[in-house]
Amino acid sequence: MVRAEIITIGDEILYGQILDTNTQWISFELDKLGIKTIRKSSIGDSEDEITSILHEAKSRADVVFITGGLGPTKDDLTKKVLADFFQCSLEINEDALNDVTEFFLKRGRELTDINRGQSFLPTKAQFIPNKQGTAPCMWFDEFGVIWVSMPGVPYEMKAIMENEVIPKLVSHFKTPIIYHKVIKTIGIGESYLSDLIQDWELSLPTHIKLAYLPSLGIVKLRLTAFGEDIEKLKLEVENQIDALRPLINSYIFGYNKDEISEVVGQLLLNNKATISLAESCTGGHLSHQFTQVPGCSEYFMGGAISYSNEIKKNILKVSESILHIDGAVSESCVSAMAKSVREKFKTTYGIATSGIAGPDGGTNEKPLGTVWIALASEGELITRKLQLGGNRLQNIHMTSLNSLNLIRRYLLKDL
Amino acid sequence: MVRAEIITIGDEILYGQILDTNTQWISFELDKLGIKTIRKSSIGDSEDEITSILHEAKSRADVVFITGGLGPTKDDLTKKVLADFFQCSLEINEDALNDVTEFFLKRGRELTDINRGQSFLPTKAQFIPNKQGTAPCMWFDEFGVIWVSMPGVPYEMKAIMENEVIPKLVSHFKTPIIYHKVIKTIGIGESYLSDLIQDWELSLPTHIKLAYLPSLGIVKLRLTAFGEDIEKLKLEVENQIDALRPLINSYIFGYNKDEISEVVGQLLLNNKATISLAESCTGGHLSHQFTQVPGCSEYFMGGAISYSNEIKKNILKVSESILHIDGAVSESCVSAMAKSVREKFKTTYGIATSGIAGPDGGTNEKPLGTVWIALASEGELITRKLQLGGNRLQNIHMTSLNSLNLIRRYLLKDL
Repeated sequence: MVRAEIITIGDEILYGQILDTNTQWISFELDKLGIKTIRKSSIGDSEDEITSILHEAKSRADVVFITGGLGPTKDDLTKKVLADFFQCSLEINEDALNDVTEFFLKRGRELTDINRGQSFLPTKAQFIPNKQGTAPCMWFDEFGVIWVSMPGVPYEMKAIMENEVIPKLVSHFKTPIIYHKVIKTIGIGESYLSDLIQDWELSLPTHIKLAYLPSLGIVKLRLTAFGEDIEKLKLEVENQIDALRPLINSYIFGYNKDEISEVVGQLLLNNKATISLAESCTGGHLSHQFTQVPGCSEYFMGGAISYSNEIKKNILKVSESILHIDGAVSESCVSAMAKSVREKFKTTYGIATSGIAGPDGGTNEKPLGTVWIALASEGELITRKLQLGGNRLQNIHMTSLNSLNLIRRYLLKDL
Repeated sequence: MVRAEIITIGDEILYGQILDTNTQWISFELDKLGIKTIRKSSIGDSEDEITSILHEAKSRADVVFITGGLGPTKDDLTKKVLADFFQCSLEINEDALNDVTEFFLKRGRELTDINRGQSFLPTKAQFIPNKQGTAPCMWFDEFGVIWVSMPGVPYEMKAIMENEVIPKLVSHFKTPIIYHKVIKTIGIGESYLSDLIQDWELSLPTHIKLAYLPSLGIVKLRLTAFGEDIEKLKLEVENQIDALRPLINSYIFGYNKDEISEVVGQLLLNNKATISLAESCTGGHLSHQFTQVPGCSEYFMGGAISYSNEIKKNILKVSESILHIDGAVSESCVSAMAKSVREKFKTTYGIATSGIAGPDGGTNEKPLGTVWIALASEGELITRKLQLGGNRLQNIHMTSLNSLNLIRRYLLKDL
């Protein structure tokens, strides 16, 4: 197994002023190559810190990726430390000089001394071109370790990795094969899920590992298989998923990059159905889940945000008596809303939400987090009561997820 | 200067399957306290890796933050490693058991053995409650270093940091006196802002530092003052802001934790005004900005998501000829939508959005990112055309921000 370390250099990342997305991207790409990231580190623009982490990485990793610290204003700190670490000097690299000269020529700008300085490289560096910018990329094969130093600007780094570094890695290392698959579930908590699949989990072979990846309302299960033959691993993982599926089938909404709103959209498309929404407590959040999917206009017609009771009465024709006797957070109110929006917007289905998202508005009878949702279709009405326990935003989010899951399971005839 | 290290545990981050946002958030908060992050590391769910990084951090840092590896499922071994590292045993912690029991009781669910197991803690741990979830937080004072172990779920971690850990850090370490104030701007890019305030920035005294914190559509300016006397620092910072304000007044929408949707809500309240929305391209996102603010029912009445042209015609009474001749993405269409929703929903103001969010739907005449917004009031109509350049979600987000800024400046009579 080839072991990789990723090191990010830069005070802006260390102090939290910018979010490092490079490291995630690199490790994801390495994973696809079967190279195992064993550590990610982030340090500041300091000679001592850089030197010390290079020494650490030397004893742990087979390949080390270094991003950042190469811009024209960083005083060449990283290159100087690399030259010292590899016991060589900094000299003009002709290829690097040609590239940076051409970069400026093409843009009709004059080459400044600072940018000319960017072509000074440690003599042991193999120069790797950067077509998107002026900071050079360097490849070292020293101490039995491959070292790749890249600029920190995300689009420059990604282009260099894809076009130059990954092909070099593939030809240099004999890498093992890893296969991942993520199973996505909704409507069940991590611990309940774990109880349901306990026996299956214990029976997994040692070369297939399971990880739980929970987030609000959604738990992902990731299977990782190690071996020699990618086709065999795929088959093994699919067989394991075949064995898993009957245990938790109703909760599985998709795999890998599937999103719940896309899955629901696809189901509506498959059914040649349309949908409209009457949102009270979700206040637009549920519509946004639908409309963030490209192409949603095929099945999502629109909705009414009936936040006030006046709008519930005047636009959605919820009766005065329902609002007066049962209140806006009630089964009868969401039922009337769902039926009305479906008729008014002439859609196959109508969904309505109403609840107490908080932080105020709870009563003894209807505590904070009490939510009703309804799904209206031709001659049928399905309602659900939720008792949520989060803050305002979480309750809104969970109501949207529950609504999406309700229509998903309805369309799958799995209610 | 107190030195901090942040360690993230979890294969899912190491393999790049999820993006670690916790580390940035923590280092940003520490920076505000005057605690210097010296290293960030990310390692896998491996006993050897966790043990070895704990030993490394012991010799470098004064305080170590560990996130992740505490969920109820079997892939979690952080607690065991911590117990070994601190040479103590794992035992039931009564406070932790009470908390997890209550967590389940409140939600009307039964406590499972797996969740009961979460209250086993290293005996040297000081238990810190987690109100948002079931994974416990632990504080250790060992080897002359403070160790804080927290769950990896971002909203749980943030609540624990804000309510429990930060106050403990402040009282434990003699942190320097620092005063921060954040000035929040909307509707101007970082480089234009920088040009406008250049002279002011250069005249800042050396003990007051300025940082630009840009995000989509909003640029925050953070002033950090270092000194001995907090009241004196506050006064100095306020004086600097008084000097800054005339330079960029129209762009400043708030300070510190102010959010644009709250600011707009407060302005509507102050004006005893109400608002309704007719959303096409924002598809619920703008309503969600309004309704995520507690108490918004005082001024936000509701809205119509008119995603399809049918709904624009039937619900919002946009004429066939407007849709046919000018199209849905046009000044005349958003004008009709805004006027109609305002009348129908009987509100002081009506706002409408329509545009091409992407990725498809652009034409030569109306390229991707073309957006119209309109604001209707009694006898007045204001429209704006935007030409956005982001992806679908960014375009939706930017349209919502521009709409909020339009009504903000209208209410301030600053258009």
